[in-house]
Amino acid sequence: MWPILVVNIVLSVIGYSLILNVVPKFKDMFVKAHLSGLDLNKKDKPEIPEAAGVITSCIFLIVMFIFIPFPFSKHFFNKEWGFPHQEFVQFMAALLSICCMVLLGFADDVLNLKWRHKLLLPTVASLPLLMVYYTNFNSTTVIIPKPLRFVLGHDIDLSALYYVYMGMLAVFCTNAINIYAGVNGLEVGQSVVIAASLISFNVIELNGDCWPNHVFSLYFMIPFFFTSLALYQFNKYPAQVFVGDTFCYFSGMTIAVVAILGHFSKTALLFFIPQIANFIFSLPQLFHILPCPRHRLPRLNRETGYLDPSVFQFKESSLNALGRLVLKIYRQLGLVQVEYNGKDGELSQSTNCTLINLALKLAGPTHEKNLAMSLMVLQVICSGLAFIIRYPLASLFYDC
Amino acid sequence: MWPILVVNIVLSVIGYSLILNVVPKFKDMFVKAHLSGLDLNKKDKPEIPEAAGVITSCIFLIVMFIFIPFPFSKHFFNKEWGFPHQEFVQFMAALLSICCMVLLGFADDVLNLKWRHKLLLPTVASLPLLMVYYTNFNSTTVIIPKPLRFVLGHDIDLSALYYVYMGMLAVFCTNAINIYAGVNGLEVGQSVVIAASLISFNVIELNGDCWPNHVFSLYFMIPFFFTSLALYQFNKYPAQVFVGDTFCYFSGMTIAVVAILGHFSKTALLFFIPQIANFIFSLPQLFHILPCPRHRLPRLNRETGYLDPSVFQFKESSLNALGRLVLKIYRQLGLVQVEYNGKDGELSQSTNCTLINLALKLAGPTHEKNLAMSLMVLQVICSGLAFIIRYPLASLFYDC
Ligand SMILES: [Mg+2]
Ligand SMILES: [Mg+2]
Repeated sequence: MWPILVVNIVLSVIGYSLILNVVPKFKDMFVKAHLSGLDLNKKDKPEIPEAAGVITSCIFLIVMFIFIPFPFSKHFFNKEWGFPHQEFVQFMAALLSICCMVLLGFADDVLNLKWRHKLLLPTVASLPLLMVYYTNFNSTTVIIPKPLRFVLGHDIDLSALYYVYMGMLAVFCTNAINIYAGVNGLEVGQSVVIAASLISFNVIELNGDCWPNHVFSLYFMIPFFFTSLALYQFNKYPAQVFVGDTFCYFSGMTIAVVAILGHFSKTALLFFIPQIANFIFSLPQLFHILPCPRHRLPRLNRETGYLDPSVFQFKESSLNALGRLVLKIYRQLGLVQVEYNGKDGELSQSTNCTLINLALKLAGPTHEKNLAMSLMVLQVICSGLAFIIRYPLASLFYDC
Repeated sequence: MWPILVVNIVLSVIGYSLILNVVPKFKDMFVKAHLSGLDLNKKDKPEIPEAAGVITSCIFLIVMFIFIPFPFSKHFFNKEWGFPHQEFVQFMAALLSICCMVLLGFADDVLNLKWRHKLLLPTVASLPLLMVYYTNFNSTTVIIPKPLRFVLGHDIDLSALYYVYMGMLAVFCTNAINIYAGVNGLEVGQSVVIAASLISFNVIELNGDCWPNHVFSLYFMIPFFFTSLALYQFNKYPAQVFVGDTFCYFSGMTIAVVAILGHFSKTALLFFIPQIANFIFSLPQLFHILPCPRHRLPRLNRETGYLDPSVFQFKESSLNALGRLVLKIYRQLGLVQVEYNGKDGELSQSTNCTLINLALKLAGPTHEKNLAMSLMVLQVICSGLAFIIRYPLASLFYDC
């Protein structure tokens, strides 16, 4: 196992330096292809190449293609052992789901797909994964937390529902990363922190009974960590490239793949605390219970050079009862800042419901670089919290 | 087997009608994304959406994802039989190679990749396929044709060379289709004819010993045939969409996949006679022994509305000895029409070395619609020839 992990790390580092070399060369090709966007939070709004995630994900795939023979090398030389097709197919299905997702993400960046595609396509891309889960494991039993056992018993077989859950996990991971964005480096940075957390978790669990699952996860997470880290060098403040939906889709699917095939989807979700918080916070806008402007990223104050929270405007009379209730609760919890305007015909406004705007509301106007760094620190703190929940606290709820 | 083939056909027909519905809706998105090109052989040079092959290939992938459980359905209900992971992994690897190729093709259409990428990337995309071939079969022995057996023996083990051959097959199929283009409908039309030929061949071989290989091939070729046929409706003269490199890559890889995993790569190549002829004919220009202009497609005579062969210009003195020799041979064989210009400083010219220009040289100026139709008929005739070579003639060379 260890020599194979070393090969994996070496290939990942080669992938890392390949990305550092290749991305600058591709910048012009992206701009020529009209794959670029304006960095709205800079004074001169520079045009930045978009969808650089496609380079990262292609190099990730190449690294994986070259790596795959190694875990099976002992079987190549000792034919009589019988080849473990069952393990091999996991690699193939995992890469198929990831590759499919990269294709869809890139198509989204180029063609600007509609929302229904953004929900439908990850579901389709996760089909190969679910099929392999069915043929290789098909364990759909969930252990009930201790406090609930007197009602539900020790465990419950979710059967088909468990597949719905796994399919939704892929959809959730991709979209949760995609909507927690708007500051240079955040999309990739959060993925790098999550990858590092998962790698730490896998290494801890190498001593456990399920170590093969965690080795499998490491084989994917180490290259993912290094290739994402390389992209982060270009995406961090001040961004030289944008990563595009391609990266968010790629990142979400890769994490979902190892969580599902590694059987640690609950733990993986623990590392998504900021994303889950941002997602739940955003729901009223995503479902149009509150108005949702096209961009919800913070806005630049051109005089100070600092970022302010962005706002959405509304007529109080046009909100329905649920919208008014949600806004009241959010306001009382201090999550949004609302400026009501009594005069007829004028609009009231509220800060947008995203974690980034909340951070700006709490901290006051902040420079983009510092905001990005703070959000990274938050992600790391939440990962620490996740480890506390997973290890000392989990024993209160589970026997493990 | 038969009920599963019926499911495959039904899903393919659904894919067919889905494409007929979806392509018109996506046209605007492609143009907005600057994915469009001018149809140079029309008088008004209309702007046509490019890379519509990405829709076809995504729907092909969706059809396959939904289809895959069916061939394994009997194992789902009779668990004690043991699941055939070995067969399952073939599907996964085949789709992984195809999906990877579609991603690369689409990236090529969007970003205009360099020639070295066009050769490197299909090789990388075929790695999963070669790995599965290695783990599942690893038969690298080639039967020698009877007339050569007195020198080489009955068979020869190519070992690693056989993998090189298979990798090159994928590269060849994708590029051979890509360069045999330039008239509305030709890229898709030739693929449809090749798919139909392969389906016929597979059906004939269902009575043979290797029928499982041919069933496997049918599972891919039937959806490929229907989805390509749907795209043909939009790409045939007068083209409403261009199919892009995406389609050529997708088409070449799908055919290479079934040829390799179905063990009939030699027969599959027989259906590529026009492509092989065009490729060999083109070699001097591809390797820059003769000058190669950016476009080699026929040119429209604006007065007659007919197509003339396109030409390349050259100074006789600038050709090297090999170039002069090749041009002399081509001219004497009647493959090109050369106009030498004796005067100093003026350029000589020759028709470009493609099958399409040769057809125009032989037939005289032709309307694009008729030229496209003639080339389709040529493809069908060559498929007939391939069947004659494969069945009555092959017995002269092989025992089969
Ligand atoms: Mg995005
Ligand atoms: Mg092309």
